[in-house]
Amino acid sequence: MTDPFILDFHVYYDDTDAGGVVYYANYLKFAERARTAWLRSLGLRSSQLRADHRVLIVVKAATIDYIRPAVLDDLLTLQTRATKMGGSSMHLAQDVYRGPDLVCTMAIVLVCVDAETFRPARWPDAVRGVIAP
Amino acid sequence: MTDPFILDFHVYYDDTDAGGVVYYANYLKFAERARTAWLRSLGLRSSQLRADHRVLIVVKAATIDYIRPAVLDDLLTLQTRATKMGGSSMHLAQDVYRGPDLVCTMAIVLVCVDAETFRPARWPDAVRGVIAP
Amino acid sequence: MTDPFILDFHVYYDDTDAGGVVYYANYLKFAERARTAWLRSLGLRSSQLRADHRVLIVVKAATIDYIRPAVLDDLLTLQTRATKMGGSSMHLAQDVYRGPDLVCTMAIVLVCVDAETFRPARWPDAVRGVIAP
Amino acid sequence: MTDPFILDFHVYYDDTDAGGVVYYANYLKFAERARTAWLRSLGLRSSQLRADHRVLIVVKAATIDYIRPAVLDDLLTLQTRATKMGGSSMHLAQDVYRGPDLVCTMAIVLVCVDAETFRPARWPDAVRGVIAP
Repeated sequence: MTDPFILDFHVYYDDTDAGGVVYYANYLKFAERARTAWLRSLGLRSSQLRADHRVLIVVKAATIDYIRPAVLDDLLTLQTRATKMGGSSMHLAQDVYRGPDLVCTMAIVLVCVDAETFRPARWPDAVRGVIAP
Repeated sequence: MTDPFILDFHVYYDDTDAGGVVYYANYLKFAERARTAWLRSLGLRSSQLRADHRVLIVVKAATIDYIRPAVLDDLLTLQTRATKMGGSSMHLAQDVYRGPDLVCTMAIVLVCVDAETFRPARWPDAVRGVIAP
Repeated sequence: MTDPFILDFHVYYDDTDAGGVVYYANYLKFAERARTAWLRSLGLRSSQLRADHRVLIVVKAATIDYIRPAVLDDLLTLQTRATKMGGSSMHLAQDVYRGPDLVCTMAIVLVCVDAETFRPARWPDAVRGVIAP
Repeated sequence: MTDPFILDFHVYYDDTDAGGVVYYANYLKFAERARTAWLRSLGLRSSQLRADHRVLIVVKAATIDYIRPAVLDDLLTLQTRATKMGGSSMHLAQDVYRGPDLVCTMAIVLVCVDAETFRPARWPDAVRGVIAP
């Protein structure tokens, strides 16, 4: 298993809500940013996958477990790794930590689809070659 | 089983992303708005639960299945209903439709917690009396 | 001067931040929603303006004065009215109230642009006919 | 005049809308993040200003001029600098660039207020000592 991709980020006001904590939907926002940064670090970009291979990556399902709240100014670490790779699907584990403490865990299912028909398509070799669960 | 609570709403620009569809995290935003409107329709408010009963309602877990995309100006319908009620937990099914078509399904687990200690607390009778799975 | 267009809405968790108040950028979100609802009430839609007249409406400038904060569960009223109409521009006043109290005022400048070239274009008669500053 | 504070950042999906560009309200989100990072770089934090000096920094007014759109994956640069310092107010210029091209300009007025009464308060020396317009 390869090392997870690490994204460190601070919690800003727009991430929080009046409960004083990170708004629960925003963990999916963090997760999408981490996936984009991860793909970018592997030399992959949505725009280039679309132009070169006529495919899009879409989120099929997401499961989130909220363990403890994060608050304003927290420095969080998001660990992203592929846990399973199918012909046109990919399962990711994306876990958020504050120091040693687990804040939340996310299991994300991505699907590679044809950019025109939106039907499942096989991952391009450009993707398959760089992602090893 | 009681009827689901219905919330109709339009998709606005700020709900969408450059993919031309509703940004995937925003379904949790819709779900939270529907829960708040649902509780309000039952005479319940977070602020009052906190003041009268010293409890908060927090989201423990969320599972989302994305079936088809929604786009700008779509009129969506969100159906919310309790599927299970525990001593301090509640399971909800929150499904988004565009006309007859299912857009996405969400399974949400809420927990009632003490407003000071954040430990699980029994649902106040004010909640238990009006929500029947 | 015609009556302003009125949009009433509640403040939800995702509108607020850890300061306990509505996050300052979200007033522009409310303003955009009010403009869309206003145009819809006049029989106008972005998608139709683009398809029928090959134009887009873009925001050129925005000025916001924050008078008093709004908080969770507040019921706010947003008044929208055109204050000036040019060949390809339109000035709006969009004011947010909580009951009789002014929460914030926004002055917005819109421009009608060609959907291909993004150069200023004259307002279609469909727009000019229904908006009277 | 001191050098502006520079924040570089990428445009992510959640920053954009179905028009394919950065949603117009999100420039205020970028601006707030830049101000927080700028204050942090000067050794200042909201939480510490509140605890040590019983003051809050609030936004009194914002003016935004939209020059050209930014799109997904753009690398943007936000330049922040104080342009005027009053007894309890501060004027900032916050400009967004994509390479040499100006994307948008923001003029922001901040006010230092008493954390209890919300009345204007003099800037603590901790702030005055490190910010020179």
